[in-house]
Amino acid sequence: MEFIKITSAQNDAIKHVIKLRDRRPREKEQLTVLEGYRELTRAREYGMKIVEVFFSPEHFLGENEFPLLESLAAEGAVVRRVAPFLLEKMAYRERPEGLIAIAKMRRHTLAELPVRPNGFYLVAEAVEKPGNLGSMLRSADAAGVDGFIICNRCTDLYNPNVIRASTGALFSVPLAEADNQEAYEWLRRNHIRTLAATPHTDTIYTDVDMTQAIAIVVGTEQTGLSELWMEHSDLPVRIPMLGKIDSLNVATATTILLYEAARQRNWRTSQSR
Amino acid sequence: MEFIKITSAQNDAIKHVIKLRDRRPREKEQLTVLEGYRELTRAREYGMKIVEVFFSPEHFLGENEFPLLESLAAEGAVVRRVAPFLLEKMAYRERPEGLIAIAKMRRHTLAELPVRPNGFYLVAEAVEKPGNLGSMLRSADAAGVDGFIICNRCTDLYNPNVIRASTGALFSVPLAEADNQEAYEWLRRNHIRTLAATPHTDTIYTDVDMTQAIAIVVGTEQTGLSELWMEHSDLPVRIPMLGKIDSLNVATATTILLYEAARQRNWRTSQSR
Repeated sequence: MEFIKITSAQNDAIKHVIKLRDRRPREKEQLTVLEGYRELTRAREYGMKIVEVFFSPEHFLGENEFPLLESLAAEGAVVRRVAPFLLEKMAYRERPEGLIAIAKMRRHTLAELPVRPNGFYLVAEAVEKPGNLGSMLRSADAAGVDGFIICNRCTDLYNPNVIRASTGALFSVPLAEADNQEAYEWLRRNHIRTLAATPHTDTIYTDVDMTQAIAIVVGTEQTGLSELWMEHSDLPVRIPMLGKIDSLNVATATTILLYEAARQRNWRTSQSR
Repeated sequence: MEFIKITSAQNDAIKHVIKLRDRRPREKEQLTVLEGYRELTRAREYGMKIVEVFFSPEHFLGENEFPLLESLAAEGAVVRRVAPFLLEKMAYRERPEGLIAIAKMRRHTLAELPVRPNGFYLVAEAVEKPGNLGSMLRSADAAGVDGFIICNRCTDLYNPNVIRASTGALFSVPLAEADNQEAYEWLRRNHIRTLAATPHTDTIYTDVDMTQAIAIVVGTEQTGLSELWMEHSDLPVRIPMLGKIDSLNVATATTILLYEAARQRNWRTSQSR
């Protein structure tokens, strides 16, 4: 493949990528930016539509980048070579790997979530930190959830820090965005019981049955779960804390609950049963 | 209390705090910097020696700061008022809370770790990211470990990001720093079996007995456990991953193992048994 090399920071395509660093233009255009070989391959593998790719072979770490570029070009992506200094200017990462892409955001609605017998869901309310959301996506993937409902989100799902922290789980886990009420009604309608983590109960999370259709619901970092979830939760549970600090990070607490469910389900996903 | 207010950035005490942002002077002087009401109270509560405190009441969020300053002064700390702009200059946080302190680092040796019947330990090899180390400290506290051995560390324990991410667990969890060989010998000598997380085994972590004296050993983010631990681990176990991404963050994996041990131990610490 031969490519004209972009060498000017005034080039419109370069300016476009840099503009997409901000949330507002991302949401308006429904486009996001991906970076690095692993992120691009995983996004592609899980069906993200990549519309434009910028590369600087001077930064490549291996031999696989050119075949990936050829596949993306064959699938309709515009592929552009850029001068190394421009790639660095466009990159989020400290050590850029020579690949930056623009991809179409997906819409995530409740209607698209799979409903399976004894389904297993995660619901998170208003997660603030991109790193926490990324980490929760990763644990949700590993624990084999059927879907992850993000309620009243305050972090942009397609924030580059979420994408990076999720190591691809943002693309692989079935996701829905909804407000609390919609999510609650969707769960009720599908006969999925809610398990809410709260310090205000004596029931330890390992003492409840998580083998039926269930949604683990976790609150915000600061204020915990809102009233709707607290009042209507079918299974309020607490995670014992045996130390002195008495608080767990929201992503950590989520992981503990997800893995207990996975353990009770004998490490089988709803799909594999 | 009346204090002379420091208003010059050229003041030696101010320059000293700023110098302590770097690891080398911190380690040379064996001093670290703490910030904010909660961090200071927890450090003090768990026996850190606070030698100097800087405050700017213009930033205070509540009413408890002055009593804390009085207690610290009574315990021998030098207390200095600084102009708000200087406090902001000294602060790590985006929204400083008006309190910054210099505290003595503690030495953490194996000899100081408690050895209890059926003791419960965490061993981590060369954790790189301060956020991961902070998060592991927090989970170690919550799961009630008797001690946390940090082997071949690459992250400075007293890095402000570790302190902050640990939300005080850095001060509450009994810690030891050692190299792999020393740690291994200490565990052997005290008849503590090692449980190592690895993908190279069929044994699931929930299928081994963690109620006896045990150390959970976790490797680095990048390369996993080194040979010593892999070859001599008494209980190699794996954490099932049911999704598509097939990797968990090291702090997340650690938490899963710690909480399984806590569950098997019926939520009792070695001290409470």
